[in-house]
Amino acid sequence: MSRYFGIKKQGKNIFLNDDDFYHIKTVMRMKKNDQIEVVYNKKLYLCLIADFKLNRVEIITEMEFEKDNLPAITLIIPLLKEAKMKLILEKATELGVTQIIPVLMTRSIIKLDNLGFMKKKTRWEKICQEASEQSKRITVPIISNLIALNDLKSWDGLKIICSTTKNIPSFKMGLKNKDKYDKISIVIGPEGGLTKTEEELLIDYGFQPFSLGNRILRVETVPIVVLGIINYEYME
Amino acid sequence: MSRYFGIKKQGKNIFLNDDDFYHIKTVMRMKKNDQIEVVYNKKLYLCLIADFKLNRVEIITEMEFEKDNLPAITLIIPLLKEAKMKLILEKATELGVTQIIPVLMTRSIIKLDNLGFMKKKTRWEKICQEASEQSKRITVPIISNLIALNDLKSWDGLKIICSTTKNIPSFKMGLKNKDKYDKISIVIGPEGGLTKTEEELLIDYGFQPFSLGNRILRVETVPIVVLGIINYEYME
Repeated sequence: MSRYFGIKKQGKNIFLNDDDFYHIKTVMRMKKNDQIEVVYNKKLYLCLIADFKLNRVEIITEMEFEKDNLPAITLIIPLLKEAKMKLILEKATELGVTQIIPVLMTRSIIKLDNLGFMKKKTRWEKICQEASEQSKRITVPIISNLIALNDLKSWDGLKIICSTTKNIPSFKMGLKNKDKYDKISIVIGPEGGLTKTEEELLIDYGFQPFSLGNRILRVETVPIVVLGIINYEYME
Repeated sequence: MSRYFGIKKQGKNIFLNDDDFYHIKTVMRMKKNDQIEVVYNKKLYLCLIADFKLNRVEIITEMEFEKDNLPAITLIIPLLKEAKMKLILEKATELGVTQIIPVLMTRSIIKLDNLGFMKKKTRWEKICQEASEQSKRITVPIISNLIALNDLKSWDGLKIICSTTKNIPSFKMGLKNKDKYDKISIVIGPEGGLTKTEEELLIDYGFQPFSLGNRILRVETVPIVVLGIINYEYME
């Protein structure tokens, strides 16, 4: 059954946004009284379509859903070309990411002013919402505002840098103490990697560099692999 | 340094194909005597560009390269839409796949006759070669001809099905005995999964179904995650 995220709830009524109702009507070709799943405030409801003019659905009943066994996972990534960013957002959402933080990094070739960033952010949030609906999540990943590396100074939890520095411990070592934390943050550099200064700054802040091995991976491959591995580590 | 795969070797001369020399000239804007890496017959050579008309380079010296610590990995996948196939081929190549076998599966929505398949295969081989060059591999993944599931009857090695069946052991259990094998094969179903009959047939052939968890992953996400996990398992 299709799943959507509600934007407002009044008693038994939940209201969706225009895009979702357009999708329901035009792509899914659903009719009044057809059933959909709607998430509102981390609760899941079975609903029927009530009013196409008001984007209104009516709650039939609350539904059970499987709790996520993952810790909170934050991806800290550079600004990337839109196609790569879209792939990361979609796949990271499927694989259970909690938060995505775009960070200014020296070797990133994408430069955005604040207005440019806010436009992108709106588009990225839409990508995450759609991917959350398709992969039946209860939450949509949060995309933070663009920050600088030194905004990560007092960051907490398990803090990992995916580093291409030679002769450092493997990512496997990085996850060894994962059970001591309920939050994992992973920094991924741009093409060409973090600069030495950037990596040293992060190490000063308590981030630890680990290696994914000697393969040459494209930037957009790394978050998918890392999230796949974290899912794997938390399997029974 | 850029890496290319040679197609013929005569003494100190290696010849590349037209596409690669076009890339060298037009995209990389390299000149005569510029240096590139060339792989021929699983050996790596430092070469200089010798002749733009004959696509010829000359070997300066043979180079050392890091041996791969992965077993042979075969991905057995359905026919998929071209964009998904391209993503799988690129990422699987980056992540060290050995062979990709397209298999006819009931729920695959892509139908190809033999001519259609051979055209696709040529395109897919080109994608794998380019990805191998970019990720500095010594080998290019082999794409097999289209087969039926019952051609897998006498398949050997560790044989895993990525299954969405409920209450089966996790993929982690599937890799538990990996050290007994030097070949791992992974079957991934189309959207909607393998049919029950298909999964039972594969189980008859000695494939074992394992679960990647309860997340709803898109078909093209699965091979990337699986290969990421296998790389992770073989990390020191």
